Amino acid sequence: MAVYAVILAGGGGTRLWPASRRRRPKHFLPFAPGGRALLLATAERVRPLVPLERILVVTAAAQVPEVRATVRDLPVDNVVVEPVARNTAPAIALAARTLERRGDGQAVMAVLPSDHVVTDEAAFVRILGHAIQAAERHLVTVGVPPRYPATGFGYVELGDRSEGPAREVRRFVEKPDLDRARQYVASGRHFWNSGMFFFRAERLLAETRRHLPDVARALDGRYEEAPAISIDYGIMEKAGDIWAVPGDFGWSDVGNWTDLARIHAADAEGHVRIGGPLVAVEARDNVVVGDQLVALVGVEGLVVVTTEDAVLVMPRSRAQDVREVVARLERERLDAYL
Amino acid sequence: MAVYAVILAGGGGTRLWPASRRRRPKHFLPFAPGGRALLLATAERVRPLVPLERILVVTAAAQVPEVRATVRDLPVDNVVVEPVARNTAPAIALAARTLERRGDGQAVMAVLPSDHVVTDEAAFVRILGHAIQAAERHLVTVGVPPRYPATGFGYVELGDRSEGPAREVRRFVEKPDLDRARQYVASGRHFWNSGMFFFRAERLLAETRRHLPDVARALDGRYEEAPAISIDYGIMEKAGDIWAVPGDFGWSDVGNWTDLARIHAADAEGHVRIGGPLVAVEARDNVVVGDQLVALVGVEGLVVVTTEDAVLVMPRSRAQDVREVVARLERERLDAYL
Repeated sequence: MAVYAVILAGGGGTRLWPASRRRRPKHFLPFAPGGRALLLATAERVRPLVPLERILVVTAAAQVPEVRATVRDLPVDNVVVEPVARNTAPAIALAARTLERRGDGQAVMAVLPSDHVVTDEAAFVRILGHAIQAAERHLVTVGVPPRYPATGFGYVELGDRSEGPAREVRRFVEKPDLDRARQYVASGRHFWNSGMFFFRAERLLAETRRHLPDVARALDGRYEEAPAISIDYGIMEKAGDIWAVPGDFGWSDVGNWTDLARIHAADAEGHVRIGGPLVAVEARDNVVVGDQLVALVGVEGLVVVTTEDAVLVMPRSRAQDVREVVARLERERLDAYL
Repeated sequence: MAVYAVILAGGGGTRLWPASRRRRPKHFLPFAPGGRALLLATAERVRPLVPLERILVVTAAAQVPEVRATVRDLPVDNVVVEPVARNTAPAIALAARTLERRGDGQAVMAVLPSDHVVTDEAAFVRILGHAIQAAERHLVTVGVPPRYPATGFGYVELGDRSEGPAREVRRFVEKPDLDRARQYVASGRHFWNSGMFFFRAERLLAETRRHLPDVARALDGRYEEAPAISIDYGIMEKAGDIWAVPGDFGWSDVGNWTDLARIHAADAEGHVRIGGPLVAVEARDNVVVGDQLVALVGVEGLVVVTTEDAVLVMPRSRAQDVREVVARLERERLDAYL
């Protein structure tokens, strides 16, 4: 059985502004272990299971040069270009259709976001192997045991049936409020939806025809006409026969600057530093990102992110509020910084 | 009587690090009213009294190109180059000797630091006029009425004799501790030493021969052999016949980032912004300097200074501790940032 990795690298996203920009999405940022770009680390960590020739990267036309510069040995045919951004369901169907046209419709696709961090790569490979096996028969996802009552992720609720390490999914649930998130963590049945999906290409296309006929039609016509819809909402929440492999492998979606501090080790004064030199005088517990030298005097618990043309300073506790900064930039038409 | 302005622009100085650097001293920074370089503003505010042809700028060889780019119409002969830095007494004597050689030894020199801020230029011109008149007969300085018990300046203690607006100086006093600074402010006799000096060129040369014979010899021999010594310590504290014109004209030496906030107007949220765009979300009373866009979320009372390669973040109350950062850079041999 052939296995393909399909890495989704089309996103924009400004949650890690000012490092991430419309033209420099998160997956190009050097936040993976070893200072690698998140996209490169994603490609490298599936390599024990999938040779480079069977790694596809789905991306936007504008990002193709940087994708190729980031994953240097990727065969030229393995970059699948989305004509326009239409969210994950059309992008994944496009990759499945690409495999079908190549005569590999039977192959299992391991669909992987390109902008997450995994700190335990050995555990990741083990879980991935289980998920790929289960995907010969089912629609499969990976569920991450929740470490805290996150309100920024969807969850999968598992049922009682199991097949080896895979367990039946009772339902997909959207991002909860804090009370509900606490119940989910307490239940032992709820796992974070990691955004990784596994299925045969032809199975995904069949589910697409059934649940998203507009998307299926657009694949053979004009991709632009596909509705923008996520695979979670468009297929996984509606289809039956969904299974999950639960697994803990140091996963994080790095959704904000405080997440980054959870992943990277702090120095003796509690600073997490990614980038250039840090000079800290009577300062503690700051998260400091960027190539510029940063000098901190007498400050504590801040996030400081520097880039050539923009700098962000805020308390770690306000990490979610980067979106308010981005909204302000949009409102004030400071597009050069977006 | 000919009057020359002698602007001292040889200094290095890192008290406004990271904006000021060894190779980009404070006098080139755009912190004067209207966003002008401090040096340019210095030249422009003496223009009502001194034509450009009689403005000399004393500087280091390495700074000549930027001096010329900053004060664009300055005649080429009016840049006096210090072969090496030897502090103010030799630099001023060098300018006096230059005037003497040009046949202008009788002229009054108005010696002006290049890196101070003056917000009331009309008052400045008035005081300067008085000081120039008094300098026909005496050694003269300008004393600034102390607005707070500063420990970062020297003071002049005035006596009872007066000649028009000029008053006799009883003595020069070095930077005091806080207790003594408070006594000075209360005394009504003590004024900040503004670092501006006024005398005839030949008088200054005579005083130099008397109090600093090594300096006088070096002027006609090898300048390198002059001892490095300030005019305050080397001449003004020793010579007699010193007079001061007291005057308030919004003077500041901009010795640190908090001083800068005293000079520039704050916006409705208390932010002092010099440079690029500021996006402030629930933030108050920050001092933000640099061309980069700066976004602040939920922070208060910080100084944030951005440059292409280095960024400083500290509470306004810690402004003096920039020197600790600079010391750390020196110790860790991060010379590129100095």
